[in-house]
Amino acid sequence: MSAPSRNAYVPFVSVDNMMKLVLHIGIERMMADLAAEIEADFRRWPLFDKTPRVASHSDIGVIELMPTSDGETYGFKYVNGHPSNMKKGLQTVTAFGLLADVATGYPLMLSEMTILTALRTAATSAMVAKWLAPRGATTMAMIGNGAQAEFQALAFKEICAIREIRLYDIDPAATAKCARNLTGRGLNVVSCTTPEEALLGAQIITTCTADKQNATILTDNMVGSGVHINAVGGDCPGKTELHRDILLRSGIFVEYPPQTRIEGEIQQLAPDHPVTELWQVISGTATGRQDARQITLFDSVGFAIEDFSALRYVHGRLQASGLYLDLDMIADPDDPRDLFGMILRAAA
Amino acid sequence: MSAPSRNAYVPFVSVDNMMKLVLHIGIERMMADLAAEIEADFRRWPLFDKTPRVASHSDIGVIELMPTSDGETYGFKYVNGHPSNMKKGLQTVTAFGLLADVATGYPLMLSEMTILTALRTAATSAMVAKWLAPRGATTMAMIGNGAQAEFQALAFKEICAIREIRLYDIDPAATAKCARNLTGRGLNVVSCTTPEEALLGAQIITTCTADKQNATILTDNMVGSGVHINAVGGDCPGKTELHRDILLRSGIFVEYPPQTRIEGEIQQLAPDHPVTELWQVISGTATGRQDARQITLFDSVGFAIEDFSALRYVHGRLQASGLYLDLDMIADPDDPRDLFGMILRAAA
Repeated sequence: MSAPSRNAYVPFVSVDNMMKLVLHIGIERMMADLAAEIEADFRRWPLFDKTPRVASHSDIGVIELMPTSDGETYGFKYVNGHPSNMKKGLQTVTAFGLLADVATGYPLMLSEMTILTALRTAATSAMVAKWLAPRGATTMAMIGNGAQAEFQALAFKEICAIREIRLYDIDPAATAKCARNLTGRGLNVVSCTTPEEALLGAQIITTCTADKQNATILTDNMVGSGVHINAVGGDCPGKTELHRDILLRSGIFVEYPPQTRIEGEIQQLAPDHPVTELWQVISGTATGRQDARQITLFDSVGFAIEDFSALRYVHGRLQASGLYLDLDMIADPDDPRDLFGMILRAAA
Repeated sequence: MSAPSRNAYVPFVSVDNMMKLVLHIGIERMMADLAAEIEADFRRWPLFDKTPRVASHSDIGVIELMPTSDGETYGFKYVNGHPSNMKKGLQTVTAFGLLADVATGYPLMLSEMTILTALRTAATSAMVAKWLAPRGATTMAMIGNGAQAEFQALAFKEICAIREIRLYDIDPAATAKCARNLTGRGLNVVSCTTPEEALLGAQIITTCTADKQNATILTDNMVGSGVHINAVGGDCPGKTELHRDILLRSGIFVEYPPQTRIEGEIQQLAPDHPVTELWQVISGTATGRQDARQITLFDSVGFAIEDFSALRYVHGRLQASGLYLDLDMIADPDDPRDLFGMILRAAA
């Protein structure tokens, strides 16, 4: 048989190659780049095919597919969420994704997205905070010091000029791990033993915990006026982090209402509770923060367009970096109607 | 850095390895095996998570995700449909799929599915015909002699004891290709120059054309009583093959009504037109063919459970065959909360 044609191959970015790409570009620089890509795609939001993610729930977790398309390129992400995985030594969230050409349906790139999701989530958080956080914010409290924490810290440093990160986790070992990883990265890192201590002086509060339950990471009396809350961890039905009373005092900003009302903090509120779509703030058709005393809340659940932006960014750097492997993934017979003949010829 | 752990790897079945697997097992034998797997999963139909496929349509094609789960294993397929691809020397349909462990969300196997879809589609058609076709059928007309045709012919030979295949395509080159590929395979192959000629003496009629339009491959006067129609090609909105009057004379059998009413031949009928679900026939709760004179119609569109069955079959043969490659696809840090530290250590 002859070797597969060029059409048969799909470039694949492995975990190893993604790490090399991140280190080559630099973590902070790559998150700033991703934030710019995501912001640009939020500006052309109405153009995208949008659908709430397609979720398959079980007792202990969820597997989701998150597709979108801008009419030229199609992308989707496979992602799981299994809080109990940590006890088994596995990742709570793992992911991979694919880009394809809308004109032919042929895949353009397959990529690991566990690392890329961590980067794009933090990049999105910081990009949104740039629009919503109070002016001159320099201190961020970080409640939950798991796998996402360092990415958030560095994205806020790079994109929002945050200088001090105040860490708290119910598990002091997580805080110690996070503080250790952030050493020498240009941040003043303060490890705290209570959430209240972490909130001291913080103009931005990031919550990023992983329990699948309606937890109350922040109670109403812990949150003063004028802060920006970046609520990352509440991202599926039955999983929230903030007390309902905080939501009622906040201006709430979301990615895609049909998805956030099911998965986000606002699942605790009435289905018609007013929220603002971020793309409207970014494109200038809605108001962001109203005044210095307002509590702004980014009810982050993660949307397919952010993954699309991130995949396109990686795809754009493939040829220059060479950090990919060609996978023989697409059957490509010489005569497209002769799939059967291709198999027969493989026998020869 | 240390090498990735076992958890990092996902077995990948390339096109090359899928061809080797098919040749190792034998095409006919593999389709009979797949038909048995699919039939077994149809028997436990109510157990599956079912959703119509998630489609992203463009002017010239569609990209779809087809997920399902039996509560233990999750599977999905990515598949495109682009009739205009053939003119570009590309496949109309290409596909790949994934199985994952519901308990952890971790992928179990990634596989090419262009070839596997061709096999499972034909296996499903023949399995369904075993339940619905008139007794003693030995002759099948095949209208449309493209990439799916040989698979259909051999599946019907193996599973339904069909002995004569009568080929017709608007393009004689397609018929010639199909006849050539079927030579020496134990079938009496008759190449025809009109659809009417192909239908002569046929108890089973398979339509499998690829135009994206409401074509009329079969008109009402071409179809006599007592036949079984296996309508494979009408499988997306605006794409049908049969005249509406044939549908009105037929007992109609479908995979999953919410999907077939959008994509199948029955998109031409009222949304409440009675149809029978195949899983009920197979599990004994609904009647199949009522009598020798009835026209039975399998309005095939392809459902996620068939892909699931096929992926599980391939997965079950991985270890014995060794026909896979390990992909470093899942980020697997030593401490699951330390994704960031894993990247840092990769620098060393």
